[in-house]
Amino acid sequence: MQELKTALVSKKSSEDANSGAFPMTPIGTVRSCFSTRNGTPRQPLLVTEARSCVVLYPGGIPVEAFEGLGQYSHCWLLYVFHDNTDLQRLWIKPGHRDFKAKIHVPRLQGGKMGVFATRSPHRPCPIGLSVAKIEGVYGGMLLLSGADIVDGTPVLDIKPYLPYCDSVSVASAPSWVKAGGSEDVLAMKTVDFSESFIRDLGASWKSMEKYSLYSSPEELQKLLKQVLSRDIRSLNQRERPHTAKLSEVSDIFSKISSDPADLDVEGAGSSDEKELSAQTEKFLQVTRDSCTNGEVLYNLVIEGVNVSYTQDSEGHVVVKACTVLQHLNTPDIRNCRRGFTS
Amino acid sequence: MQELKTALVSKKSSEDANSGAFPMTPIGTVRSCFSTRNGTPRQPLLVTEARSCVVLYPGGIPVEAFEGLGQYSHCWLLYVFHDNTDLQRLWIKPGHRDFKAKIHVPRLQGGKMGVFATRSPHRPCPIGLSVAKIEGVYGGMLLLSGADIVDGTPVLDIKPYLPYCDSVSVASAPSWVKAGGSEDVLAMKTVDFSESFIRDLGASWKSMEKYSLYSSPEELQKLLKQVLSRDIRSLNQRERPHTAKLSEVSDIFSKISSDPADLDVEGAGSSDEKELSAQTEKFLQVTRDSCTNGEVLYNLVIEGVNVSYTQDSEGHVVVKACTVLQHLNTPDIRNCRRGFTS
Repeated sequence: MQELKTALVSKKSSEDANSGAFPMTPIGTVRSCFSTRNGTPRQPLLVTEARSCVVLYPGGIPVEAFEGLGQYSHCWLLYVFHDNTDLQRLWIKPGHRDFKAKIHVPRLQGGKMGVFATRSPHRPCPIGLSVAKIEGVYGGMLLLSGADIVDGTPVLDIKPYLPYCDSVSVASAPSWVKAGGSEDVLAMKTVDFSESFIRDLGASWKSMEKYSLYSSPEELQKLLKQVLSRDIRSLNQRERPHTAKLSEVSDIFSKISSDPADLDVEGAGSSDEKELSAQTEKFLQVTRDSCTNGEVLYNLVIEGVNVSYTQDSEGHVVVKACTVLQHLNTPDIRNCRRGFTS
Repeated sequence: MQELKTALVSKKSSEDANSGAFPMTPIGTVRSCFSTRNGTPRQPLLVTEARSCVVLYPGGIPVEAFEGLGQYSHCWLLYVFHDNTDLQRLWIKPGHRDFKAKIHVPRLQGGKMGVFATRSPHRPCPIGLSVAKIEGVYGGMLLLSGADIVDGTPVLDIKPYLPYCDSVSVASAPSWVKAGGSEDVLAMKTVDFSESFIRDLGASWKSMEKYSLYSSPEELQKLLKQVLSRDIRSLNQRERPHTAKLSEVSDIFSKISSDPADLDVEGAGSSDEKELSAQTEKFLQVTRDSCTNGEVLYNLVIEGVNVSYTQDSEGHVVVKACTVLQHLNTPDIRNCRRGFTS
């Protein structure tokens, strides 16, 4: 990401000037319970148990900028869809000249719509807009619930939600948005937790507790239930469920361990390490068993915990196992946790 | 504006890379009935008669990007506060290091709030967010009403308004927002039009009709009534009304005529020109009379028409005179007009 931006600004000025781009500097970062794009809700306020916070960059905007914000119940977050796979194409060829105007919409079963008729993250100007509930301002951090934003997202702006102009009671949306909404195609019938998962989570909790935004394994389980009560799989996974293979699960582990930025630096070499690999081994065993039974095991990473679940065609979800992939041990997360659990 | 951006991108790359700015390329421009910041409503949907449209840049995003948007009643516009007086400071010193965290709030009678607790345009990342009513898509233009956006604003993104997540029925705002809201401090008691204004507008209409987003002088008058039904004066003007002087009115004329970009290029040297200067002379006479009577004459430029009005301490507004400052004669405006009046 940083390399791309550096490359961009060092391009010859004539080209950039023609593109007419405005340089927008983020004010801070979202720390969120959603570790990856997969599992991050598709709309805000659907997962009310979701916790996150905005942390201002040190040396940037003073904390006083938050003054008065706690008097509102909700706020808007404007942020960069920094995790998009098409960012490179977008920013290396500015001016949108080969931008695709129409995109596939999951709710239209693969049908296409103009990009401005959707809230897809793949937009000519990759700015996201989400409403979130304000839980409070704690030591220079804005504590939020209900945000549908992935951990590490750069924040461009925060605006208070003004009910008298933002809440448009007469607004309407086309039927394909309503019909395909959360109450419908994407809604799951049941979400159950296997006994082994509950045991796993209890065991994992001991090592992850001090890095969690939640106060107990039960709270974390409640979050998981909300997240999985809607189909979080990609269109691809939904269309071809049996291509999800054991290799994909292994990929998660190799990805995590090969990227030093994802690793818990302070925890490296600590006594937790042995326990983590024991958990991983057990997790992989569950995965092997599932594959043997012909069941497809899906994965979701929340708060650095890899959770595996099955989902049948009737909309019944069973959570099977979990293992701690990494400890979220940064000063931001520790402060954020203190705000939520104090 | 273009010079500033060029200067920015040609700065040495190391400095820019540190600032971590994201290059955001606008997709198009807002053409709006609000010619200047003064008079542009402080919130969206207050002035329902306000007409505007988004015009995509030629050669950029294809028109198909609008497909399906007309099925929604409302949309969000994300745009650059390009007319801010503090943009230069903001972008030449990126990283927000000397950014002021608290700002004066008109509704707090000069009191201060953290910038993120306000919707002020003077923000660390100068992105605006407004909801507007969708009137239709016409030949690659998105026709809107109720937008509180000044003519010429660069648009970064358009998103459909999703009632089920954007309209938060339980949201609340602090009392200083409600108490100082449009229904209160800023609301005017009456807005009347002098006979001479109505004559002026009728006479002006002949020359401006083909460049207006409205179909009759009566429609334009209705817009004016809505705009002036709230105090549009700056905090400065409200606190010291008697510093508004004849010289300020003259300034408007000299500013317009000294900036070739503001002039109607096609109309230059045409037969309309003599008529425009006759109107201007008459307008200045009204202004001189007002100053002689000790009344303060305020100005508002809408659709290139300079409108002067008085406002007493009881909240009574009288519109006195108008004159055409410039003809909005661009292909964009002509197309936009066709969409609205067809």
